[in-house]
This record gives sequence, structure tokens and C-alpha cells, in this order.
Amino acid sequence: MAFHIVLVEPEIPANTGNIARTCAATGTHLHLVRPLGFSTDDRELKRAGLDYWYAVNISYYDSFDELKAANPEGRFFYASTRSSKRYSDIRYEDGDFFVFGKETKGLPQALLDANPQTCIRMPMTDKVRSLNLANSAAIVVYEALKQNDFPGMEG
Amino acid sequence: MAFHIVLVEPEIPANTGNIARTCAATGTHLHLVRPLGFSTDDRELKRAGLDYWYAVNISYYDSFDELKAANPEGRFFYASTRSSKRYSDIRYEDGDFFVFGKETKGLPQALLDANPQTCIRMPMTDKVRSLNLANSAAIVVYEALKQNDFPGMEG
Repeated sequence: MAFHIVLVEPEIPANTGNIARTCAATGTHLHLVRPLGFSTDDRELKRAGLDYWYAVNISYYDSFDELKAANPEGRFFYASTRSSKRYSDIRYEDGDFFVFGKETKGLPQALLDANPQTCIRMPMTDKVRSLNLANSAAIVVYEALKQNDFPGMEG
Repeated sequence: MAFHIVLVEPEIPANTGNIARTCAATGTHLHLVRPLGFSTDDRELKRAGLDYWYAVNISYYDSFDELKAANPEGRFFYASTRSSKRYSDIRYEDGDFFVFGKETKGLPQALLDANPQTCIRMPMTDKVRSLNLANSAAIVVYEALKQNDFPGMEG
């Protein structure tokens, strides 16, 4: 049993590093769609403090379409502040994919427009533009895990 | 209606910054117990990217006892990887306080030992020592908000 987090063109290494740590903590697979805003060579990862990189199952793609083609059976949920559906109103299932866009812009509008039934948002006040990317990913994956009684996790 | 996040001697400014952003996004009050691992003068905050600092209701204390004395009616929940109770098994109420320790050590063992019924943990695999502090805070406060139907938040 595993969930999947997809980062489309993430820009800030510390965010991807925090998400990798969450993935290691939860047995979640991490999928990265290039271009990335950082190098994944050993020295750069170490410099960015990405300590948990090697404890995580990570896949790389050159486009989101490539990822979709490689996972034809997956259910994909698209996180966006522009969605109307709350993340907590979905019943998540083993194998679901949670897709997050780049920090500065979010996911492409065309991708959201093509998937209106599976766009999700986290409720928030109007004081911020968005939550931090890593926090958003942690909130959604822990909601999915909780719904499934934290499979394979101690406690 | 508001929840409260307490950080006891936080060390890493980016974590406190991310938590401030989550507080701004959710109308949560932030309570900081000194010593802090960073300066809160304007220039330092800006350098650390703490953009949401001034959108958050923040209180400062010189000790956790001072905070407790100032909030005698509050229910306090203590996050620790050493707790046995899942964070998601509590019914949270308006005004609850969520208490997090420093990044390197967590909360003092004596504080956890004195509050066995209100210590909470996030389930995780044995691949990591803990979740990132800001992610932990976001997961708990969003669980509390969800249980209360996201009061005062758009969406």
C-alpha cells in the first residue's frame, strides 16, 4: 500500500527535501517532473540538507504526460488554491496520486481545467496567497493516511 | 474561534516562518517560548523570508510556565514522537493549544511525563526520526480545523 506525491517543476530544494522526509515517514512514493529548481547530484543534495533522499522511492519524468502514461490506472488529485472542492471531502484509496505545482505559480490552469472533478484545495483565510508547498503535501497525505488507518506505519 | 500553536525554543527560522504562514492561513495564534534560535528584529525576519510575520497574532514568553499561567483555561496537547496516542484520535475544541518542542530534541521529557493523557503523535515509519516541525504543526492544526468544519475560513 502506498500513496504518491507528484511535484511538477518544484523550485525550492528545501521544500522538496521536506516532502522527501514526509515521504520517507509515510512510505509515500515521490514523483518529480522536470525541470527541477535544483540539482540532484550528491553534493548539491547534501548542501541543501536533503538527508532523507535515499530513504525514498523517487521517480523522474520529463513531462507530466510521461508520468500519466506510466501510471494509466492511477487516480490523480490536483492541489490548487483555485479549486472549489475541499481536500477532506474526498475518500482516498491506496495508490492515489496527489499532484502539486511549482511554488510561485501552482499547476498550469489547463491541467486544472481538464480535471475539474479531481481538483482539491485546502481551506484558508485571505491573509495568505497559499500554504507552503511542503505543508500542503503533508496535510493531504496525512488526511489520506488517516482515512486508511495509517497502513504500515507504527502507531 | 481560534486554535493556538506553541513553539518551545524553536531553533530554525525557516520552520517558524512556515508555521507563521500556516497560522496566518488559518487564524491560529502563535506562541513562542524563548530562547529562540533567531532574532525577531525586522532585518533578520526579512532575511529569513518570514513574510507573514505581521499577519499573525504572536505572543512571546520567557518560559512555558509563564505561558500556562497566562492561559489557565486552555487545553494543551503535546506533540512528541514518544507519545502513544494518535493526534487524530482526539476531538479538538475551540481554543486548544498544540505544543511543539525544539527541532533537535522535541519537548522536555518531564513535560511529557507530567501530561500523559494529552501527549499526541503522528504515526510514521521507522525510516525517519521525526517529521519536519512545520509539517507536524500543519498536520495537527488542519486536523483540528477539519473536525470543526474550517471555522472562519473561505472554502
